[in-house]
Amino acid sequence: MTTLAEDAKELLTLGTATLYEASGLDCFLDPAFRPAWDGAQLVGRAVPVTAQIGDNLALHHGIEAAGAGDVLVVDAGGAPFGYWGEVMAVAAQARGITGLVIDGGVRDTQQLASLEFPAFSTAISIRGTIKNWPGTVGRPITLRGRVIRRGDVVVADRDGIVVFPADEYDRVLAASRARAAKEESYLDRLRSGETTLDVYEFRHLGVPDEAR
Amino acid sequence: MTTLAEDAKELLTLGTATLYEASGLDCFLDPAFRPAWDGAQLVGRAVPVTAQIGDNLALHHGIEAAGAGDVLVVDAGGAPFGYWGEVMAVAAQARGITGLVIDGGVRDTQQLASLEFPAFSTAISIRGTIKNWPGTVGRPITLRGRVIRRGDVVVADRDGIVVFPADEYDRVLAASRARAAKEESYLDRLRSGETTLDVYEFRHLGVPDEAR
Amino acid sequence: MTTLAEDAKELLTLGTATLYEASGLDCFLDPAFRPAWDGAQLVGRAVPVTAQIGDNLALHHGIEAAGAGDVLVVDAGGAPFGYWGEVMAVAAQARGITGLVIDGGVRDTQQLASLEFPAFSTAISIRGTIKNWPGTVGRPITLRGRVIRRGDVVVADRDGIVVFPADEYDRVLAASRARAAKEESYLDRLRSGETTLDVYEFRHLGVPDEAR
Amino acid sequence: MTTLAEDAKELLTLGTATLYEASGLDCFLDPAFRPAWDGAQLVGRAVPVTAQIGDNLALHHGIEAAGAGDVLVVDAGGAPFGYWGEVMAVAAQARGITGLVIDGGVRDTQQLASLEFPAFSTAISIRGTIKNWPGTVGRPITLRGRVIRRGDVVVADRDGIVVFPADEYDRVLAASRARAAKEESYLDRLRSGETTLDVYEFRHLGVPDEAR
Amino acid sequence: MTTLAEDAKELLTLGTATLYEASGLDCFLDPAFRPAWDGAQLVGRAVPVTAQIGDNLALHHGIEAAGAGDVLVVDAGGAPFGYWGEVMAVAAQARGITGLVIDGGVRDTQQLASLEFPAFSTAISIRGTIKNWPGTVGRPITLRGRVIRRGDVVVADRDGIVVFPADEYDRVLAASRARAAKEESYLDRLRSGETTLDVYEFRHLGVPDEAR
Amino acid sequence: MTTLAEDAKELLTLGTATLYEASGLDCFLDPAFRPAWDGAQLVGRAVPVTAQIGDNLALHHGIEAAGAGDVLVVDAGGAPFGYWGEVMAVAAQARGITGLVIDGGVRDTQQLASLEFPAFSTAISIRGTIKNWPGTVGRPITLRGRVIRRGDVVVADRDGIVVFPADEYDRVLAASRARAAKEESYLDRLRSGETTLDVYEFRHLGVPDEAR
Repeated sequence: MTTLAEDAKELLTLGTATLYEASGLDCFLDPAFRPAWDGAQLVGRAVPVTAQIGDNLALHHGIEAAGAGDVLVVDAGGAPFGYWGEVMAVAAQARGITGLVIDGGVRDTQQLASLEFPAFSTAISIRGTIKNWPGTVGRPITLRGRVIRRGDVVVADRDGIVVFPADEYDRVLAASRARAAKEESYLDRLRSGETTLDVYEFRHLGVPDEAR
Repeated sequence: MTTLAEDAKELLTLGTATLYEASGLDCFLDPAFRPAWDGAQLVGRAVPVTAQIGDNLALHHGIEAAGAGDVLVVDAGGAPFGYWGEVMAVAAQARGITGLVIDGGVRDTQQLASLEFPAFSTAISIRGTIKNWPGTVGRPITLRGRVIRRGDVVVADRDGIVVFPADEYDRVLAASRARAAKEESYLDRLRSGETTLDVYEFRHLGVPDEAR
Repeated sequence: MTTLAEDAKELLTLGTATLYEASGLDCFLDPAFRPAWDGAQLVGRAVPVTAQIGDNLALHHGIEAAGAGDVLVVDAGGAPFGYWGEVMAVAAQARGITGLVIDGGVRDTQQLASLEFPAFSTAISIRGTIKNWPGTVGRPITLRGRVIRRGDVVVADRDGIVVFPADEYDRVLAASRARAAKEESYLDRLRSGETTLDVYEFRHLGVPDEAR
Repeated sequence: MTTLAEDAKELLTLGTATLYEASGLDCFLDPAFRPAWDGAQLVGRAVPVTAQIGDNLALHHGIEAAGAGDVLVVDAGGAPFGYWGEVMAVAAQARGITGLVIDGGVRDTQQLASLEFPAFSTAISIRGTIKNWPGTVGRPITLRGRVIRRGDVVVADRDGIVVFPADEYDRVLAASRARAAKEESYLDRLRSGETTLDVYEFRHLGVPDEAR
Repeated sequence: MTTLAEDAKELLTLGTATLYEASGLDCFLDPAFRPAWDGAQLVGRAVPVTAQIGDNLALHHGIEAAGAGDVLVVDAGGAPFGYWGEVMAVAAQARGITGLVIDGGVRDTQQLASLEFPAFSTAISIRGTIKNWPGTVGRPITLRGRVIRRGDVVVADRDGIVVFPADEYDRVLAASRARAAKEESYLDRLRSGETTLDVYEFRHLGVPDEAR
Repeated sequence: MTTLAEDAKELLTLGTATLYEASGLDCFLDPAFRPAWDGAQLVGRAVPVTAQIGDNLALHHGIEAAGAGDVLVVDAGGAPFGYWGEVMAVAAQARGITGLVIDGGVRDTQQLASLEFPAFSTAISIRGTIKNWPGTVGRPITLRGRVIRRGDVVVADRDGIVVFPADEYDRVLAASRARAAKEESYLDRLRSGETTLDVYEFRHLGVPDEAR
């Protein structure tokens, strides 16, 4: 985990698009997840949580179960309730939790921005929640059909979110660095006037359909 | 009304999430309403308006009927037309109108930002409108199923929108202050390492489902 | 084309709402197209491109076919794939291409912002694409039902996008200037307290429905 | 009203598409309204009702206020609650009410079909409602931006819904008969092999774009 | 379980709306679930299954794990793939499985109708699936935010779906019978001309808002 | 073409799901296309058409350009207008056109059903169209990102729509027959109690995640 924290800045510079492409894995989450404030981004280890619709008790247990470098990844069924806000963000930061990904809504987005607590959600909503079902914490879940296991690497930025197994980390990081280096060399050629068709050697794939 | 204008800054610091929770009322609008520019927020008294789809004549009457400290709250049926723009914002500000909430689209969002005229809408659209039906102004309406009456208190920020009866104002404000104070005390405990489960006394509600 | 580049600043100051209203044409694109980064805006000549779902080969051909002052306008069927990113933006800028409009997703939005390469899309997504069908480049297309022909004038800002035939350009620009000047005179009257009902002479159109 | 009931069969044979086209009015409702059971269709006079989200008390008042030949036309804000079911349909039929149009959900759809009580809604849902706000009954409303007044003619079939002022009825009926007769003559010519381009004299409008 | 099978016809006659209302539980699923063929309805015990997006391997394990009177209740993340078709329905029926509820797509809907195998889904799609992740079978899941446990009672008809704990079954059935009997007595009074306002004693709740 | 007409019944018995799976091609259209009446299904050769939003002139040209065994496949941008109705269906049937697929709306659905003219659309709407742009007819188009060329084989049923190149027809038909025969043998084994895990040999792919 130390490594991941140390690498956080580099991972965010590489970005989710590069990590995803270099990984060779179907590791991107649904694009419905969006940052709750402009500039939010995060790196951490997943702590999967399942919550009932309109009920955030499970998230409180999630905060307790998570620690430094963890990210809560929550399936709350997608409904626009305000499952998370300032109080929970303060509590989470006190434990070193680095962020939140939730299929549901968050609120206090201005305060989350001030706290620099990154949250990615499918809604922003003030609608209140009950505290009834303690949910599941730590067990594997699926989030819009993607499997999330405890300890998975989570990286999120304004382009999207990737989640992949921890034992793929070294490979994905190396592949991402290689891809970024290669792209950098491409960029030089492109800036000097070469076309992407030549740089990527796409010409043999055919020419546009003149019949259209 | 004086009171509301004087309290505007405090109300926005309390925020819609706290006002809603403290009110004990189902006073939040559908989360489909979003600020038309980053940072838009408003406080005011509702002047309800009904407009026909693709027709903004009623909004012009709304401007005339409203005055200092008022917010136009408009049911335009949700269609993405540009019902409101710079000209209307200037006219509204000349009368002291403090903002707009509309189930429909707005345009000239850059100019609205420059004017610091807060607008919350369900779409951004340049599509033009006709001027045919003068609509209703001042009569109670429902906005995505929420009743809005003339003089209701409206507060909107980046988290959402609350609308509640004027005669609830003193109670809601007091309850919101109390809630904010209580949360502040919670924040101190949370920052020093206590869990939300203990601070809110949620432990008796059960533990996460280990069977999942 | 020189003219358009020279007019770019003025066109963006006039804004898409004014250009559309003054044009008298059904020239606005669906409001589902949104800027990929805050502040993105563009002016250029359309180079229409058709791409297959999840396949961005046609966009590479589009870059090659386009030149200084052009905007790629792409029908990719609306699916949330990452059809366009930093590498393509760098290649496009090297050719003087001024921006992108795509019914589909883009990624590397932070880099697009740093490059000041304006992109308008219907999604933000990191999901990768194949390179299989070279598509069509330069032929007329429809984009959510709007006809786009090579050389059409494209202007996009945070309010929306207009696309109209090049031979309408002089007329639309003149009409837009006239409209803006007229609106400016309206603004003065409105600021001094006149109502929009009087300034626009809407009173004869009726009064709000008191029966509601 | 007698006339409308007598004409019901003919109006449904003419169909909403013909009535709308012949009327020359923007009298169609949003296509989100769909029949709650296969074959539902209705003709009647509108009794407009406004209900609060998740609250069907207003519909009970609507039943009482309506009579033979009336159709309840309800703005419930679009949320998927079960605002209407078997009990209410039986009560409505006992008063001669001929159907329901609601921006919201209905349930007991099998029983509605057995009763032959036509309902058009934007959702089917069993979710229960409270009885808190008596709403408005009989006052003009807008339904997704269309103005509905008491006594307006409402016709609904599987293609859609039209609502227009009662004083337009004779004109719309006559125009619809004329249109249907004209179409019938077109059908004969089309069946014998003529093209729609010739029958409707569309050839001068241009030929398809071969450049595409 | 014998009881449930014996009661199936009665449960479907009572219907999901009555079961839900009588239960006093938040036991309805999201209305996005719709029958895959006209007339589909089911009664059974839940076997919860989690599948990965675009991967139906878990459903094959679900068939094996389920037996007579069971219903597979599957969280596949909502994506429109064809997770289930004729072959699986035949295999399921051979084991006595009484139906399927899935947040995802099904296909072979004509064959499912011929087999009288009831399926409720959020999409109809022929798009193929991989077989990669065996998923979870039998463990509690949430389906659009509703908790589903193995053995829960599932009833689905054209109005919706209810899922509630097995130990509530006797109580819910008794309450539903009582509610149906009460409603029947109401129906008699309503057919003879009484209003719902009187039958349900709603008059004290206020009268419609004449100010609107 | 004779072959296709002769094979129509067999193709519809095989069904779109089998044709798609056996083809090995990404040949399915977006599941947003649905039959306009219950039981609609079609087989034919594609005649691609592009129409402008709210303008059906191109469809009239499409009817003229198409002949026996053809299917009009229309990109109208997805907007809910009534681009097609009874008159056009009669004209189309007079030419032997076997059906319509359109990204847009249709009306007169009852008459289409009576005529047994199969239409698949993304909306049902009575909203009228203008006749202004003759569009494109016969040129390749993309429909929600799928390439459609003149002469492509189109098969549509209640599960979905497949469109593939004519020169793939013999191969796809043979592969579909083989797949159907294989499935039939599977069905026998499944009816006699074998599991799909054994019949398809999926056991080596792992067992459900007991940790969840």
